[in-house]
Amino acid sequence: MTTVPETMRASVLRGTEDIACERRPVPRPGPHEVLIRVDAVGTCGSDVHYFEHGRIGDFVVTGPLILGHEPAGTVVARGSEATRHEIGQRVAIEPGVPCMRCTECRVGRYNLCPDMRFYATPPIDGAFSEYVVQHEEFSYAVPDTMSDEAAGLLEPLSVGVWACWKSRVGPTSRVLVTGAGPIGLVATQTARALGAREVVVTDVNPYRLRVARELGATGTIDVGGTGLAESGYQPDVLLECSGYAPAVPDAVRQVGRAGRVVLVGMGGDEVTLPLAHVQGFEIEVTGTFRYANTWPTAIALAGSGEVDLDRLVTHRFGLDQVEQALRNATTDQTAIKAVVRPQE
Amino acid sequence: MTTVPETMRASVLRGTEDIACERRPVPRPGPHEVLIRVDAVGTCGSDVHYFEHGRIGDFVVTGPLILGHEPAGTVVARGSEATRHEIGQRVAIEPGVPCMRCTECRVGRYNLCPDMRFYATPPIDGAFSEYVVQHEEFSYAVPDTMSDEAAGLLEPLSVGVWACWKSRVGPTSRVLVTGAGPIGLVATQTARALGAREVVVTDVNPYRLRVARELGATGTIDVGGTGLAESGYQPDVLLECSGYAPAVPDAVRQVGRAGRVVLVGMGGDEVTLPLAHVQGFEIEVTGTFRYANTWPTAIALAGSGEVDLDRLVTHRFGLDQVEQALRNATTDQTAIKAVVRPQE
Amino acid sequence: MTTVPETMRASVLRGTEDIACERRPVPRPGPHEVLIRVDAVGTCGSDVHYFEHGRIGDFVVTGPLILGHEPAGTVVARGSEATRHEIGQRVAIEPGVPCMRCTECRVGRYNLCPDMRFYATPPIDGAFSEYVVQHEEFSYAVPDTMSDEAAGLLEPLSVGVWACWKSRVGPTSRVLVTGAGPIGLVATQTARALGAREVVVTDVNPYRLRVARELGATGTIDVGGTGLAESGYQPDVLLECSGYAPAVPDAVRQVGRAGRVVLVGMGGDEVTLPLAHVQGFEIEVTGTFRYANTWPTAIALAGSGEVDLDRLVTHRFGLDQVEQALRNATTDQTAIKAVVRPQE
Amino acid sequence: MTTVPETMRASVLRGTEDIACERRPVPRPGPHEVLIRVDAVGTCGSDVHYFEHGRIGDFVVTGPLILGHEPAGTVVARGSEATRHEIGQRVAIEPGVPCMRCTECRVGRYNLCPDMRFYATPPIDGAFSEYVVQHEEFSYAVPDTMSDEAAGLLEPLSVGVWACWKSRVGPTSRVLVTGAGPIGLVATQTARALGAREVVVTDVNPYRLRVARELGATGTIDVGGTGLAESGYQPDVLLECSGYAPAVPDAVRQVGRAGRVVLVGMGGDEVTLPLAHVQGFEIEVTGTFRYANTWPTAIALAGSGEVDLDRLVTHRFGLDQVEQALRNATTDQTAIKAVVRPQE
Repeated sequence: MTTVPETMRASVLRGTEDIACERRPVPRPGPHEVLIRVDAVGTCGSDVHYFEHGRIGDFVVTGPLILGHEPAGTVVARGSEATRHEIGQRVAIEPGVPCMRCTECRVGRYNLCPDMRFYATPPIDGAFSEYVVQHEEFSYAVPDTMSDEAAGLLEPLSVGVWACWKSRVGPTSRVLVTGAGPIGLVATQTARALGAREVVVTDVNPYRLRVARELGATGTIDVGGTGLAESGYQPDVLLECSGYAPAVPDAVRQVGRAGRVVLVGMGGDEVTLPLAHVQGFEIEVTGTFRYANTWPTAIALAGSGEVDLDRLVTHRFGLDQVEQALRNATTDQTAIKAVVRPQE
Repeated sequence: MTTVPETMRASVLRGTEDIACERRPVPRPGPHEVLIRVDAVGTCGSDVHYFEHGRIGDFVVTGPLILGHEPAGTVVARGSEATRHEIGQRVAIEPGVPCMRCTECRVGRYNLCPDMRFYATPPIDGAFSEYVVQHEEFSYAVPDTMSDEAAGLLEPLSVGVWACWKSRVGPTSRVLVTGAGPIGLVATQTARALGAREVVVTDVNPYRLRVARELGATGTIDVGGTGLAESGYQPDVLLECSGYAPAVPDAVRQVGRAGRVVLVGMGGDEVTLPLAHVQGFEIEVTGTFRYANTWPTAIALAGSGEVDLDRLVTHRFGLDQVEQALRNATTDQTAIKAVVRPQE
Repeated sequence: MTTVPETMRASVLRGTEDIACERRPVPRPGPHEVLIRVDAVGTCGSDVHYFEHGRIGDFVVTGPLILGHEPAGTVVARGSEATRHEIGQRVAIEPGVPCMRCTECRVGRYNLCPDMRFYATPPIDGAFSEYVVQHEEFSYAVPDTMSDEAAGLLEPLSVGVWACWKSRVGPTSRVLVTGAGPIGLVATQTARALGAREVVVTDVNPYRLRVARELGATGTIDVGGTGLAESGYQPDVLLECSGYAPAVPDAVRQVGRAGRVVLVGMGGDEVTLPLAHVQGFEIEVTGTFRYANTWPTAIALAGSGEVDLDRLVTHRFGLDQVEQALRNATTDQTAIKAVVRPQE
Repeated sequence: MTTVPETMRASVLRGTEDIACERRPVPRPGPHEVLIRVDAVGTCGSDVHYFEHGRIGDFVVTGPLILGHEPAGTVVARGSEATRHEIGQRVAIEPGVPCMRCTECRVGRYNLCPDMRFYATPPIDGAFSEYVVQHEEFSYAVPDTMSDEAAGLLEPLSVGVWACWKSRVGPTSRVLVTGAGPIGLVATQTARALGAREVVVTDVNPYRLRVARELGATGTIDVGGTGLAESGYQPDVLLECSGYAPAVPDAVRQVGRAGRVVLVGMGGDEVTLPLAHVQGFEIEVTGTFRYANTWPTAIALAGSGEVDLDRLVTHRFGLDQVEQALRNATTDQTAIKAVVRPQE
């Protein structure tokens, strides 16, 4: 059995653009929690946003905060009533624990729980550290064949799965994915795994479009050059993953009758819709906020090889390099996903 | 049996703001059609729009056009294969006939049929005339207790039913209806008939708000005075029936978690949504285009008295007064619905 | 503030057909629980079944058990973390608390939770006693205008609401309710409240059919005389509330195309379906097990007067008369619902 | 352009177990119909049943009837208004044309149309002939890479697609398919294509189970030996494709909470369900009748290679060998699907 130390290293955001490694006590698991040694943590745009701006909308960083919410690791200790996992079990971590008592939780929409405790969302610490605790029911055993990094990236895959569920993608779907970042790339793969006949991906970065094709996109459009309307592509599902609000109206105008639009990418407070088209074609538009009950499906998709998560990892950093990891996304045109490896 | 004359009077739109009574041949029913003597026809905002502007979006009036798409009447002749109604049967008319062969028709969304032939939509004539023909399956027997005018107003009621269906209103729903025009008033009543616990209606016209309360609204807000946000009302369903796009973002911001927004009112080509709210609360937004399969429900609701359509009729005109009927809506603050009575 | 005594009276099932009043310690609320003084408890067929047979299927009474799972009362004490209700609040009690951690709970189907703790189901005690404890989130404030007895009968109403939800009853529905016992009568009223155009009720007891008509049934069939097939009634929804399995095939054969059948009544381990009809008409058949998230709707329906629960109460008993209350249902043809009043 | 002859050969059922080739006039296409030269027609259990018993339930053969409803062919002539296909286009044929006017058709459930005209169902002739006519909208262009036989077998694939849709199979589904005949084998492949994690197939014929594994079944159970209960397999979806009603109750008892059961196989008029299990687990049970709007999906699945239809064809016959084709299924243990090739 692993001996758990008293203290650990953690990368702490102390103020805007001020992040550094500190020593912190190793947390102790509550009755239904497990203590997990963190093996890999993906970095996400929201981590970058907190780092650069100290807030996301109403969520404001007011004290030291550990970022990182795409972790995977190994169970090293269990709370007094935790029986779901054995010591040594490799697990993926769903980084939020809802109250499970409010109206939203009771009807199965726990992602909308107003009392959600979510990693790396002030004031809850995230996973850029050597150890984390998590409720045993929000930790999921992963197969031996899945890498630590892929296990961490089940979190962005969950975002893609949730978006695909909301859009009701199926075997005859023609899908348009706007934005070939990590979320666009997992949404593309998930849509294909659910049988989508066509998945066309847009971006202004030719490298990312190449990766999209590698991962199953049936077509790509470099919207730095060609306008979407000129492409003539008429999808029945639009998964907006770019977060670039000004492009949304034109993308929605392409969507066919009774089509569905899912706004996944975040960017700005407002978005404009082509009203006459939304009405005349009875388009359904919605947004996503995290996910609920997606890990079993994400594990099935990544475990079977239908979705390739390892391909997304382009850069790796240690715990003392989190700043570089967060800056990497904006500086390197070939960056897709940077992963932090706390044990290295 | 009624003798059908060779010619009839019809009110013809000959150009922008140019409408007058002319003599036209009485149309002959095709094999599956019935000839209907028109007893009452509601006037609608779209009739007014064609009268004033000669077009609605891509639909342009290029020749003489008979307006009016809210008719009811009496069957006076039948096509060679029409067996559904007896001569003398009073009927409500669903004013559009879809192709019933395209993909949309085959899956049950015939309102989205690209080959729909719809009354008073260029180049198809409407019902401001003494007689019309309609497919027997899009003509519906109405009970003797229902007035001619109510039978005509099953058309706007269908718009309200469709909006309520899309919004999944039910017994615990808290509904916000923006706009207390004819559509807002039928949507209000339908929501109540479907069990909605609360239906709050907004308008800037105090008279209309009074009618809304009479017809079952549990609350009203005069948005000429109070802002919606100040009211603190948090609905789970928003039925936008005002067509005033600038007010939409604030209304959407009031909607609670997993709420639904149905954009029924038409006005302008674009509408702005509060993106962060739509995402964070996973609001579903859609628009409506006419309706499908609503007449049986509309007849049941109006027939049982749960929805009062007669209360909406504030003015009546003859065939030679259609211009006055169309101008009435904008000039009279106490106008709700003007009805044309072609036989008087 | 009410002083809570140390002990209380409780009616205890000690063996088959052996039930008597005993003194028991008043239970103490856990952190999120409230202590409730029980004002009224409905008796249910399952209480009768435990009393007469000592078991229901796999649930076997192996020690002393307090029956009763349709209680309402008044909050008299609160656990250390219970903040939802004030002392003195009148509440209805949902008599089961799910684990809220398993897969079923997480997707919103908590009624299927394998670790549900449900009143009066061995080994969990029920509510035929002066006091009970319940989780604060499964206790619901009721309006002052609702009687104690009606508040208790929100439990059977929940069964009816759940059945109606499963059957997707709406404004054009034609409903057949087989069995005019308490569940049939609440299902009838709920179906009407949801707008059902027709609700036809069957039974062999003419008194109950009379009550059904009083409570909104649009038709009744005394199946002691007329066969269902002879009636020619073709519903699109069948709510089977009689628990008499031999009558099910004939009832299902009446159901129209794409109709829904919900098997609510319990009786025997097997039921026969007319396969060719279920296939040829693509009938959907399901059963119900308790309910989930129904209390807010039940409170709305009973609170507005759309459902009359007080009308169901035909007999009242004290805590020392529980045996009589349980025997009442089988001996009195005019019995519908007997209520136990522990404070009298 | 092909010259169309005046007469053709057709295999005609003249009485029970009396089938022979006759000369018939080549049918002429109506305005919206195409004339199709038949290249391949699958044989189906219902053809065998008409041949052996002269009826299926209420459908009775009262005059000469051409059987065969799984055809594919080539367009050789078009009706006056038919524009959808060019002459020479290879097409799959959906063998039923609904009225498209009744309530069922209007809501998108045209398979339940009471006025459906369906091939090889008395008195409508089927496709064991050199030519057939069909409505252009129920004829579907197939890709050049798809064989004639596969194009014909899109009909049984449609049965499997419809069953999978009804059962809501998805990426985490565990599916049990009872019966490894043609329908079981297409259902297995479709479930896998929709992402089902596990598909376990049962049969008493080891050869068919071997084919099931070849085509993607993740497990098989020879129910001639092992009982289903002993297998311990707990699916969430049961696709009953054996038509052996006595095995249904045990199969349903295996299905997990909130599971779905789709009764596809036909056999006998009644079926028994385990009532307590259907209620306690809230199992949904339904049957299928043909299909609606499945051809585009079936073409996508077979065209992409996700479903292999050619593997099902084990025997081929000419038009004058239809009797042998129909007897083949019962006499040869390695028979899966016999195809008739009218042009050979």
